[in-house]
Amino acid sequence: MQRLIIGVIGAGDASPSGLEKAYQVGRLIALRGAVLVCGGLGGIMEAASRGCFEAGGEVIGILPGDKAASANPFITHPIVTAMGHARNVILVQTAAALIAIEGGYGTLSEIAIARKLDKPLVLLDSWPDIDNTLTTDAPQQAVITIFSLLGRNLQP
Amino acid sequence: MQRLIIGVIGAGDASPSGLEKAYQVGRLIALRGAVLVCGGLGGIMEAASRGCFEAGGEVIGILPGDKAASANPFITHPIVTAMGHARNVILVQTAAALIAIEGGYGTLSEIAIARKLDKPLVLLDSWPDIDNTLTTDAPQQAVITIFSLLGRNLQP
Amino acid sequence: MQRLIIGVIGAGDASPSGLEKAYQVGRLIALRGAVLVCGGLGGIMEAASRGCFEAGGEVIGILPGDKAASANPFITHPIVTAMGHARNVILVQTAAALIAIEGGYGTLSEIAIARKLDKPLVLLDSWPDIDNTLTTDAPQQAVITIFSLLGRNLQP
Amino acid sequence: MQRLIIGVIGAGDASPSGLEKAYQVGRLIALRGAVLVCGGLGGIMEAASRGCFEAGGEVIGILPGDKAASANPFITHPIVTAMGHARNVILVQTAAALIAIEGGYGTLSEIAIARKLDKPLVLLDSWPDIDNTLTTDAPQQAVITIFSLLGRNLQP
Repeated sequence: MQRLIIGVIGAGDASPSGLEKAYQVGRLIALRGAVLVCGGLGGIMEAASRGCFEAGGEVIGILPGDKAASANPFITHPIVTAMGHARNVILVQTAAALIAIEGGYGTLSEIAIARKLDKPLVLLDSWPDIDNTLTTDAPQQAVITIFSLLGRNLQP
Repeated sequence: MQRLIIGVIGAGDASPSGLEKAYQVGRLIALRGAVLVCGGLGGIMEAASRGCFEAGGEVIGILPGDKAASANPFITHPIVTAMGHARNVILVQTAAALIAIEGGYGTLSEIAIARKLDKPLVLLDSWPDIDNTLTTDAPQQAVITIFSLLGRNLQP
Repeated sequence: MQRLIIGVIGAGDASPSGLEKAYQVGRLIALRGAVLVCGGLGGIMEAASRGCFEAGGEVIGILPGDKAASANPFITHPIVTAMGHARNVILVQTAAALIAIEGGYGTLSEIAIARKLDKPLVLLDSWPDIDNTLTTDAPQQAVITIFSLLGRNLQP
Repeated sequence: MQRLIIGVIGAGDASPSGLEKAYQVGRLIALRGAVLVCGGLGGIMEAASRGCFEAGGEVIGILPGDKAASANPFITHPIVTAMGHARNVILVQTAAALIAIEGGYGTLSEIAIARKLDKPLVLLDSWPDIDNTLTTDAPQQAVITIFSLLGRNLQP
């Protein structure tokens, strides 16, 4: 009865192309019936949240601060950690699989934790050269790959 | 666009009466259209989750362990903190208001944080004598009071 | 080779009598060769830190904020959690035993976690009526009791 | 009155060369009068702890588990977080500057947080190609560089 939860990680600062791709990723996650989880703030996080929300999906925001009001307007389920960067770890653990879009050092810390925990992960225009991590520049390809990885993981 | 999130706090060990009241509280929260947040495990947490879920509601479980699979069967949105007792603080911060049902020392720690943060709080057959905290033995009264307190809080 | 670490819990707001007793408790902990751990800020925390430091002891401050500079001037080992109230749980877990001095709701949350974890605990002019928890109004008695409880715990 | 705290980050799995270099780094940190902070477990963490401890230094272990007894034998000040990977963030925040030695994905997450927080950082036989981060293969060079960076940071 648990909903499938897909993580989108990325920074508050992003390129126009990154924001557009994040919106598409969020939209495709909603259309496949999954819940999106992200860091709940602006930039990539907000663009993906908006894409998911406008397609009818739910969006969990794992917030670093101590106020639900700090969430972007498309977060439907704000989780108030008041734990700063440590909330990155909760985000990764909560997601069944993750897509990283562009991103800075905060995103790199999440990519590293995702690899540490062996979570399915796709890098979309993100950090290069993280040993054998799947990479793409196409939002649709990223989402298809993530769901395919989850399908494979769920098989015996 | 954020959903209203109501917290139910209580222990894994509970009396038959406590479990029945937790079920009713969960059900009433769902019927009023709110999301329930709890610690995600058994006892009071599971009874309230079941009441909410069976009435069509959503249930966020703020899990102390590192596996979504540790959640009770009625959790729809598992949050995987891997933070043990520190997850109690996230639970309280995430709830707009809380109902404590019976409970041991873990519950007392949540009641204390709720008072520290000035969250609306009702004690249902729970710890006695917490300075001026509202108490009741009726689930319906607890839920009505919580929503009434939130209504007052939301007014200027 | 681990140092014995004793926790002192209490609020930023305290009575003159509470501050004096906290100073004595800190001093006695240092004289017995233990390290003091506290929340690292003002009031009871600072008075106990000062008592310990001025008697030559070390003081660990488990800080809620993101800057070591937020510690009181007597903290020798600042731990920067940036986790707000969740740092209370780390404090209790790190202490081998604890003394609560006066205190508000934050202190009550720590008392509750200490009881949950079965840590030796003495209440010094603190919350009343926490089931069977030892209470006293004398700093020396509090410290003697804590070390006696630890001695008993360490014996087979 | 705060002690200077230097972080050493690295994995439980390490090469013989890495362990030897970690020991030297720990020793040099102690000889310069600083406290070492690490993750408190085995491998690089234990080798650095041992080097520091045997040279008379103090070693803070930010432990992921819920028992002080899980620390390596050279930890003098165990901090019990029970927060799993989220303790990595506390470690980085607590250190004034950090040296990464070899390391896996957990170490990469700490490197990323250190860069995010603009902490002075030297990579010793560690992850390559982290934008403009200082790298070396010599323990003495790593320690000299870290103290030099701190000196520069402290000057107006």
